[in-house]
Amino acid sequence: MKKIVLAYSGGLDTSFCVKHLTEKGYEVHALTVDTGGFSPSELKEMEQRALKLGAASYKSVDVTGEYYDECLRFLVYGNCLRYQTYPMSVSAERMFQAMTTARYAVEIGADGVAHGSTGAGNDQVRFDLAFELSGRELEIITPIRDLKLSRQEEVDYLAKHGLQWPEKKGTYSINAGLWGTSVGGAETLTSDKSLPEDAWPVQVTETEPRKLDLHFTEGQFTGFDDQEFDGPVAAIKALEKLAAPFGIGRDIHVGDTIIGIKGRVGFAAAAAVLIIKGHHLLEKHTLGKWQLFWKEQLSNWYGMMLHEGQFLDPVMRDVEAFLESSQTTVNGTVHVTLHPYRYVLDGINSSDDLLGGGFGSYGEMNNGWSGEDVRGFTKILSVPGRIRNAVQQNK
Amino acid sequence: MKKIVLAYSGGLDTSFCVKHLTEKGYEVHALTVDTGGFSPSELKEMEQRALKLGAASYKSVDVTGEYYDECLRFLVYGNCLRYQTYPMSVSAERMFQAMTTARYAVEIGADGVAHGSTGAGNDQVRFDLAFELSGRELEIITPIRDLKLSRQEEVDYLAKHGLQWPEKKGTYSINAGLWGTSVGGAETLTSDKSLPEDAWPVQVTETEPRKLDLHFTEGQFTGFDDQEFDGPVAAIKALEKLAAPFGIGRDIHVGDTIIGIKGRVGFAAAAAVLIIKGHHLLEKHTLGKWQLFWKEQLSNWYGMMLHEGQFLDPVMRDVEAFLESSQTTVNGTVHVTLHPYRYVLDGINSSDDLLGGGFGSYGEMNNGWSGEDVRGFTKILSVPGRIRNAVQQNK
Amino acid sequence: MKKIVLAYSGGLDTSFCVKHLTEKGYEVHALTVDTGGFSPSELKEMEQRALKLGAASYKSVDVTGEYYDECLRFLVYGNCLRYQTYPMSVSAERMFQAMTTARYAVEIGADGVAHGSTGAGNDQVRFDLAFELSGRELEIITPIRDLKLSRQEEVDYLAKHGLQWPEKKGTYSINAGLWGTSVGGAETLTSDKSLPEDAWPVQVTETEPRKLDLHFTEGQFTGFDDQEFDGPVAAIKALEKLAAPFGIGRDIHVGDTIIGIKGRVGFAAAAAVLIIKGHHLLEKHTLGKWQLFWKEQLSNWYGMMLHEGQFLDPVMRDVEAFLESSQTTVNGTVHVTLHPYRYVLDGINSSDDLLGGGFGSYGEMNNGWSGEDVRGFTKILSVPGRIRNAVQQNK
Amino acid sequence: MKKIVLAYSGGLDTSFCVKHLTEKGYEVHALTVDTGGFSPSELKEMEQRALKLGAASYKSVDVTGEYYDECLRFLVYGNCLRYQTYPMSVSAERMFQAMTTARYAVEIGADGVAHGSTGAGNDQVRFDLAFELSGRELEIITPIRDLKLSRQEEVDYLAKHGLQWPEKKGTYSINAGLWGTSVGGAETLTSDKSLPEDAWPVQVTETEPRKLDLHFTEGQFTGFDDQEFDGPVAAIKALEKLAAPFGIGRDIHVGDTIIGIKGRVGFAAAAAVLIIKGHHLLEKHTLGKWQLFWKEQLSNWYGMMLHEGQFLDPVMRDVEAFLESSQTTVNGTVHVTLHPYRYVLDGINSSDDLLGGGFGSYGEMNNGWSGEDVRGFTKILSVPGRIRNAVQQNK
Repeated sequence: MKKIVLAYSGGLDTSFCVKHLTEKGYEVHALTVDTGGFSPSELKEMEQRALKLGAASYKSVDVTGEYYDECLRFLVYGNCLRYQTYPMSVSAERMFQAMTTARYAVEIGADGVAHGSTGAGNDQVRFDLAFELSGRELEIITPIRDLKLSRQEEVDYLAKHGLQWPEKKGTYSINAGLWGTSVGGAETLTSDKSLPEDAWPVQVTETEPRKLDLHFTEGQFTGFDDQEFDGPVAAIKALEKLAAPFGIGRDIHVGDTIIGIKGRVGFAAAAAVLIIKGHHLLEKHTLGKWQLFWKEQLSNWYGMMLHEGQFLDPVMRDVEAFLESSQTTVNGTVHVTLHPYRYVLDGINSSDDLLGGGFGSYGEMNNGWSGEDVRGFTKILSVPGRIRNAVQQNK
Repeated sequence: MKKIVLAYSGGLDTSFCVKHLTEKGYEVHALTVDTGGFSPSELKEMEQRALKLGAASYKSVDVTGEYYDECLRFLVYGNCLRYQTYPMSVSAERMFQAMTTARYAVEIGADGVAHGSTGAGNDQVRFDLAFELSGRELEIITPIRDLKLSRQEEVDYLAKHGLQWPEKKGTYSINAGLWGTSVGGAETLTSDKSLPEDAWPVQVTETEPRKLDLHFTEGQFTGFDDQEFDGPVAAIKALEKLAAPFGIGRDIHVGDTIIGIKGRVGFAAAAAVLIIKGHHLLEKHTLGKWQLFWKEQLSNWYGMMLHEGQFLDPVMRDVEAFLESSQTTVNGTVHVTLHPYRYVLDGINSSDDLLGGGFGSYGEMNNGWSGEDVRGFTKILSVPGRIRNAVQQNK
Repeated sequence: MKKIVLAYSGGLDTSFCVKHLTEKGYEVHALTVDTGGFSPSELKEMEQRALKLGAASYKSVDVTGEYYDECLRFLVYGNCLRYQTYPMSVSAERMFQAMTTARYAVEIGADGVAHGSTGAGNDQVRFDLAFELSGRELEIITPIRDLKLSRQEEVDYLAKHGLQWPEKKGTYSINAGLWGTSVGGAETLTSDKSLPEDAWPVQVTETEPRKLDLHFTEGQFTGFDDQEFDGPVAAIKALEKLAAPFGIGRDIHVGDTIIGIKGRVGFAAAAAVLIIKGHHLLEKHTLGKWQLFWKEQLSNWYGMMLHEGQFLDPVMRDVEAFLESSQTTVNGTVHVTLHPYRYVLDGINSSDDLLGGGFGSYGEMNNGWSGEDVRGFTKILSVPGRIRNAVQQNK
Repeated sequence: MKKIVLAYSGGLDTSFCVKHLTEKGYEVHALTVDTGGFSPSELKEMEQRALKLGAASYKSVDVTGEYYDECLRFLVYGNCLRYQTYPMSVSAERMFQAMTTARYAVEIGADGVAHGSTGAGNDQVRFDLAFELSGRELEIITPIRDLKLSRQEEVDYLAKHGLQWPEKKGTYSINAGLWGTSVGGAETLTSDKSLPEDAWPVQVTETEPRKLDLHFTEGQFTGFDDQEFDGPVAAIKALEKLAAPFGIGRDIHVGDTIIGIKGRVGFAAAAAVLIIKGHHLLEKHTLGKWQLFWKEQLSNWYGMMLHEGQFLDPVMRDVEAFLESSQTTVNGTVHVTLHPYRYVLDGINSSDDLLGGGFGSYGEMNNGWSGEDVRGFTKILSVPGRIRNAVQQNK
C-alpha cells in the first residue's frame, strides 16, 4: 500500500481527499501545518475529522516560529507589499505549509504527497514546487485538480461515505494566518465591486482614537507600548488582536497569479500593515538614501518571487543577506494613532535617527557646510549638462 | 548696469532680494512662474510689491500647461510617490520655476539670475542647476544664501526702505501648487511630532461619504464623474477642490535632501494622491506583470532624480519614453469612495481589463489550460532546483 | 483534411515531419522563414525536398528586414550579449521564424502549426509560445518532441519512403543566421572542452592586421569604411564576410535554457560582436552616466526575455522605447583594428563626443569649475556620512 | 605648529607638497600606503626623499591584505568591470590609500591631512571624501589643487630648495597596483588614438600559447596550476607576472569621472581580467539564473559607487553581503589558454557544476521532464498573452 502525506487544511477539499485517497488504496497521513491561523480547538476538530475519514494518521505541526524567522522577518525588512498593497500573507504561509509537508513526507519515508488545490490558483504551484524540491522523488497527487468536482459533488461524496459536511457558514472564503486573513467572494470575482462590511472577518468595534508605540530592534518588530512579549510572533498576534477591530489594513489586492491570469482578493492584515508601514518610516530616518533605493528594488522583486512560490531559489538567500545587512541601525519606536478604518504614523524616536543628527534641521542653517559649498556642489553637478549643451551648440 | 532676472515668489526672502539687489545697482526683472499655486489677485499684489520695491519690470507666466505635459503626466504614469508617500509637489514645481526663469533670462538677454533660497534646502540646488544649464553663461546671485540674515533682519531692512512687511499670518510655512501643498513648522523639525489639525491648509469640513469616478485615457487623468473639463489641469484643480475638505492625501514625508541631510515636511495633496492611487489600481488590471515590475523600478528612480533637481538629465527623457509606451492600455474608470480623512478604491471598469478577460476568473476553472498543463509548468519550473539538489547530493 | 503549416528548416527533423505528417493525413504547407541564414540555392533545394516529401505547398519568406528593424536593432542599442558573451543569434532568429510561421498559418486559414523541435531545448518553447499567441486557436503539432526518435530511425523512415537522406557532413551541428552561427558538438556537451579549430564554420585565413571604420547613425550600424550599403542588413552581411576569416567573435556561451537546465554552445559572430562592442564604445563617449547605467540594467533583462521566447510581452515594447530614445546622440565612427582571432577598438570620432567637449580633457585644468568647487562638492557629498558618524558617536 | 599627515606617493606633486607645507610651517608626517604597487627599494627611496624634503616623519604601511579582503574580493565576486572594460584598479586602491591616511591622521592626533591631487581628476574626491569621513574634524590641505602650478614650476621650486628632480623617464603617466596599471599619455587625451606598443608597462615577450588552470574556492581566486600560494594576494601577483608578458588585459577605458567630465585611460591588468572573466565563467556553471541576473544589476552599481569614492556608503556593505552569500557554490577550476594579446576560456571543472548535473545535457533527452511537461509549461507561459489577445479582440 502506497504511503502518502496529505497537506490537510480541514476544509471540504482536503477532507474529500482523505476519503477519496483512502478509498483508492492509499495509506493517507494527514498533516496540518499551522502558520498561526489555527486555534487548538480547530486543530482538535481537524484531527477527529481526518481520522474519521480514514486517515492512517494525523499530525499537526506549528511552524510559526520558523515561518517568522525564515520569511516574515524579511518581508518586514523589505517593507514588502505586493503592488504596494498586499502583505502576501497567503503566498508566504502556503509556501511554508508546502515545504513542511514535503519535509514530513521525506521523514516518514512516504511514497507520495497530496494537496487539495484546484487547477485555477496559485497554491497548486506552490505545493507542486515544494514537493518537487523535497530532495526525494515523490509522487504528487492532486485529486481536486484532476477530478474537477463541484462543491456539491464533494459534499455528496462525503455524505455517501457517512460524513455530513456542515452547511457553508458564509458566502465568503476565508484564509486566516499570522500575517493576515484573505477574503474571497462574489465581489472579488468582479473588477468593480468592493467587499461589503460584513464580509470582513473582524468587524469594526473601536470608535475612539488610540495611541500606540511600535518597537523595533535591528529591523524586527519586538512589541508595542509597555507590554512584554514572548518573541515577535506573540507580539504580532497581540497587535493583530488590538488593531483588527479598528478595521485597519483592509484592502483588495489585484495581482498577477503564477499561472498568468489576474486575480483579485480582499485581505485584512492590521498587524502586518502597521508593522510594515511603521518599519518603513523608521527606515526613512535611519537608513541612507541608497540603502532605501536598493531595498525597494530588491524587495519588490523578493516579494514577487515569494508570491510565485520561488522561495527556494538560491537568490532569495542572497537578497535576504542584503536585507539583513541593512537593518543594523533600524532601531527605535514608531508612534502611531489608530482611528476607525485608518491610522496615522505620528513620528519616531531612535538613537539612530539621522534627522537632525547634530547637524541642525532641514531648512535651518548649520555648521556642516556653507552656501559656498553648495554652490560648488551644484557647479560640479552641472558639469555633464554644461558639456552636453556646449557639444550640441558646437555641432 | 547689470541686468538680472529674479525668481520672485512674493515672499519675504525674494522681496528682500528685489530691494537689496536694486540697491546694489542691479536692474532687477522680477519673474513669477505660476505652476498652479497663485490666484490672479495674489499675482496682482505681487506685481505691485515688486515694482514698489524697485524692480525694473515684473512679469508672471503661467506654465501650468507645460508643467503638466512635461512632468506631472509622467509622475502619474509612474505612480510616483517618494518613499511611497510624497507626490513631490514642491520638487516638481520648483524645477519648472527654475527652468522658466533661466529661459526668460536668456530671452531678455540678462547678465544674471537670482533666487532667494537659503543654503539649507533643496531649492537652491534646483535653481542653481537649472541656471547653470540655461545654455548661456549667467551669473548666479543668491543674496539669502550668502548673507544668512534672520527673518527679523530682512523685515527691518525692508522697513528701513519704506516697506512695512505684514505680520506673519501663521506659524506654518506653506507652499501651494497644482500637485499639492507642503506644510512646515515646529513639529516637522522634530522626528516624533505630527502636525496639529489647524496646521493643514484646508480644514476637514466634509462628514459624509461620497462616491467618485475617476476617468483615465492612456494613463492620463481626464476628469471625474460626468463633468467635462478643459484639460487635465482643470480636472486636477477641480478634484483638489472637491477632495481637500475630506482631509485626504495628508501625510508627513521624511526624506533625503539633495545636500544629504534628512528632511521632514507635511503635505496635503488630495488630487495627486487620488489620481496616483487610482491610476495604479487601473494599471494592475490593464498592464502585464513585467510592465508593472519595471515601471516600479524605473519610476522609483525617476522620482528620486526629479526630487534632486536632475530633471534635465537625458536619461529622464528615456524613462519617460518607457513610461509613455506602457500607457496605451491604461484606459477606464476608477471607482472611489471618499470618507473624512481616507478613501477607498472600490474597483474599476475598463475595456482593457485583463481580469476575467474571457478566461474565467481566478479560482474558477476554465478552458485556457488544464491541471495537467500546470503540472507540466511546475515540473519545468522545478528543473533548476532539482538539478541543484542532485548536484549537492552527489558531492 | 486538416491543413497545417510546418516551420521547415530543410534539416532531417523537419523533413521527417513533412513525410510523417503527410502520411498521417495532414495537408502540410511547408514554410521556410529566412532570417539571413539561407542562400538562394539552399532555398531552392529545400523547396524541392519538401515537395518531394509530400508537402502540399512550399514557401520561403525573407523576413531579414523586419528581423533587423524589430529586433536586432534593439540588440545593438542595448549592447546585448547574454551573460556578457553571446549575441543571442539563435534566440532572436528562432523567435522571428516562429512568429512568421504563426502569422502565415493565420493568413492561409490553417488548422494547425507544426515545428520540428525536440523536447530538450529552447526552440520548442519559442515555437509553442509564438503559436499560442497567434491570435487564433491553432493546433500545435510536434512530432519530434512526441515521438522521440533517434536520428537513425528518422533516416530509416525517410529511406523507407523513398528519400535517401545524405550522410551527415560533419560532426557539428550548425545554425547560421544574420547575427551569427552557432556550433554544437561533442565538446559543447562537456563543461571543460573547447571547440577544435575545424569545428568553426569559417576558418581563419587572414594573417595581417586590417584597419576598419564602423559607422553609426542614431545607434544604428550603417556601414564601414567608405563603402555604400543598401541598408543595415547588407552592411552586416558584408562585415561578417570581411571579419569572419579573422576568427573574430568566436566563443562558447554557457547559459540557462528556458526549461531550466544549463546549456553550452559555441558561436561565431564576427559582425555582431564588432558592431555591439563598437557601438558600446561610441555610447561611452556620447551618452550620460545614468543613460549608460540604466541601459545596462534594462538591456541585460531585455536580452534574457528575448532569449526565453518572451519577445511578445508588452514590456519589451516599453524597453525598446527607452532604448530608442537613448540613441539620438549615438552618431559617429568607431576605429577598429582586426587581427587574427582578436580586434582592438582604437577610438572614435563623433560630433556628439562628450569627451573633451570644450571643457578641456580629463586630468587637465580648465574653466568649467575650480578646485574650490570640487571642495564644496565633496563637502556636500560627505554630509550623509558625517551625520552617520556623528549619530553613532553620540549613541 | 600644526601637525599634518600627507598621503605621499613619492612623485613630483607630493614631493613638492612635503617641502611646500614644511616651509609653510606645518609638521609634515609623510605616509605611503602600499596597495601592492611599490617595491621595497622604491619605498626606501621614498622614505629618504620625504625626509630630505623636510618631513617630520615617514612611514609606509602595506594594506594589500585588507585591500584584498575588503574590496578586491568583492570586485571578483561581482565580476566588476566598469562599463564592461575597466577593473577599476586605481579607483579601488586610491580609496584604500585615502582611508588609511585618514585613519593614521586620527591615530597620531594630527590636525590635518594633505593630498597632492589636482582639481581635475577623480582622486581629489576620493581623498576629500575619505578625509571628511575620518570621524574627526581634520583640516584638508590640497596645495596642488589650490596653487595650480605647472610641472616646471614644481621642479624649479624643488631645485631652489636643493632637490634636483630627475628628468621624466617617459611620456606616459603610470600608476601601478595589485589590480592593474593605468597608463595616461597624449593619446588618451584624444578620443580616436590608441596607445602605441611601447606605452604599455610590460612588453609582450611571450610568443607561444600556454595552458593555465585558475582555481577558485567560494568565489575567491586561490591560485593557479599546481602551485601553492601564500594567500590570494600572492597568487594575484604571481598570475600578473605570468600573464602580463602575453599582453593580456590591455584596453582603454572611457568613462565618466566623478566631477562629470568624460575621461579616457589605458590600463594593463592581466591578472584582474583573467580572474574576473574566469570567475564569471565558473559562475555561469554554478549559479542560478536569477543569481546571475541580480549579481549583474548590483555589481554594475557597486563598481560605479566604488569608482566614485563612495566606498564608505553603508549600502556597499549590504551589496557585499549579497555578493558573499552568492558565492558558496562558486568552486572549481577554470581552464584558460594564454596567447599573445589574447586568451581563451576553454572550460571549467567543478563539483558544483549545474551543467549536465545528472539530468543529461542540453539538446539531449532525459528523465527530468517530458515533452508534455514542456507543452504544459508553454501553455501556462502563454496565458497572459492569450488573455491580452482576447481582450484586444473583444474591444
